[in-house]
Amino acid sequence: MPKLRVHNLSISLDGYVAGPNQSTDNPLGEGGESLHEWAFATRYTNAMFGKEGGETGIDDDLLAAGDRGIGATIMGRNMFGPIRGEWPDLEWQGWWGDNPPYHHDTFVMTHHPRPSLPMDGGTVFHFVDDTPDQVLRRAFEAAGGDDVRLGGGASTVRQFLRAGLVDELHLAVVPILLGAGERLYDDLGTLPGYRIGSVVRSPAVTHVTFVKTP
Amino acid sequence: MPKLRVHNLSISLDGYVAGPNQSTDNPLGEGGESLHEWAFATRYTNAMFGKEGGETGIDDDLLAAGDRGIGATIMGRNMFGPIRGEWPDLEWQGWWGDNPPYHHDTFVMTHHPRPSLPMDGGTVFHFVDDTPDQVLRRAFEAAGGDDVRLGGGASTVRQFLRAGLVDELHLAVVPILLGAGERLYDDLGTLPGYRIGSVVRSPAVTHVTFVKTP
Repeated sequence: MPKLRVHNLSISLDGYVAGPNQSTDNPLGEGGESLHEWAFATRYTNAMFGKEGGETGIDDDLLAAGDRGIGATIMGRNMFGPIRGEWPDLEWQGWWGDNPPYHHDTFVMTHHPRPSLPMDGGTVFHFVDDTPDQVLRRAFEAAGGDDVRLGGGASTVRQFLRAGLVDELHLAVVPILLGAGERLYDDLGTLPGYRIGSVVRSPAVTHVTFVKTP
Repeated sequence: MPKLRVHNLSISLDGYVAGPNQSTDNPLGEGGESLHEWAFATRYTNAMFGKEGGETGIDDDLLAAGDRGIGATIMGRNMFGPIRGEWPDLEWQGWWGDNPPYHHDTFVMTHHPRPSLPMDGGTVFHFVDDTPDQVLRRAFEAAGGDDVRLGGGASTVRQFLRAGLVDELHLAVVPILLGAGERLYDDLGTLPGYRIGSVVRSPAVTHVTFVKTP
């Protein structure tokens, strides 16, 4: 059975997955880039941006593993861009330039649909105003038997967790405090139906994976 | 200069240092005991309760280090007991039996003072209705040149952090979710004036220490 998986979701000690006040200059919110330094230091992330070098090891391995076997992606609108409400025009095409690192059908959850957007390299953004359940059904279809990856932000992940749709939740706990921003753990309780699958520590972060109990 | 130190403060992934609904049967709140399993597994904690055996290693070493050089303790009233408001009588003498594991002057912050309570083994509980600053001054005096240890709970630690009085904050991040309870990170922001001093990982927990920047 194909799975819905969250991977390498960077989270601060105080539970934030992005800083406050996301904007075009601050895609990850104020201070949010410090959540991702561990990833940007790796060979895998460098290679994704056409650069050489970088660290290998646990973090690098887990970043690569997070992309393996994935045939479609779901993300919240704030992960696609900083624009809220109605689209003023169709100019915004995501944070990633002409060739986004997805290379497959990528579903953007938004209350303001717009035409699908094919990019270089195989990524096609679809804008969907549907329930998590419906979006996931479309994503599984698009993935053709592969797993589906769920990106951020916090509220999108929470929606899918609350609906019990996430099969695997892999967090990268970064030892910093953000103090404000988008909190993952709001009204999630103890995540009934999940247990801790593994805890793996790299020098930079602690990788914790929750898996759904059958 | 003697320091005010917090050590081995167990905190869940979602930021709780105790479960909800503390009571006589549930000193650590519902589910709160799971925050402390790593400590109860150690040789050091066993020895404190007169038992033999237990795990050695990072956790054991850091538990022992947390007690070294300490000449007085400060704690919140909820760490002393489950009773709220006025004391109905003076029968409650803490969770720890006749011989509490402090063995020095121990200041309990409460709006309801009562006479000091000398216990076996040198612990004397003092009940103080004062500002963090004033309580700390008394504790430093009692410690006679040694450091002062600040216990829980969450709101007591937050008071001292906000007042900038904590020199060292050592958390033991436990990879579980409590979902509810006493949250440490409320209105603390990014803890201005502190930086991460060290991150040490044991198989059970991630020890993170914040130190005051001069």
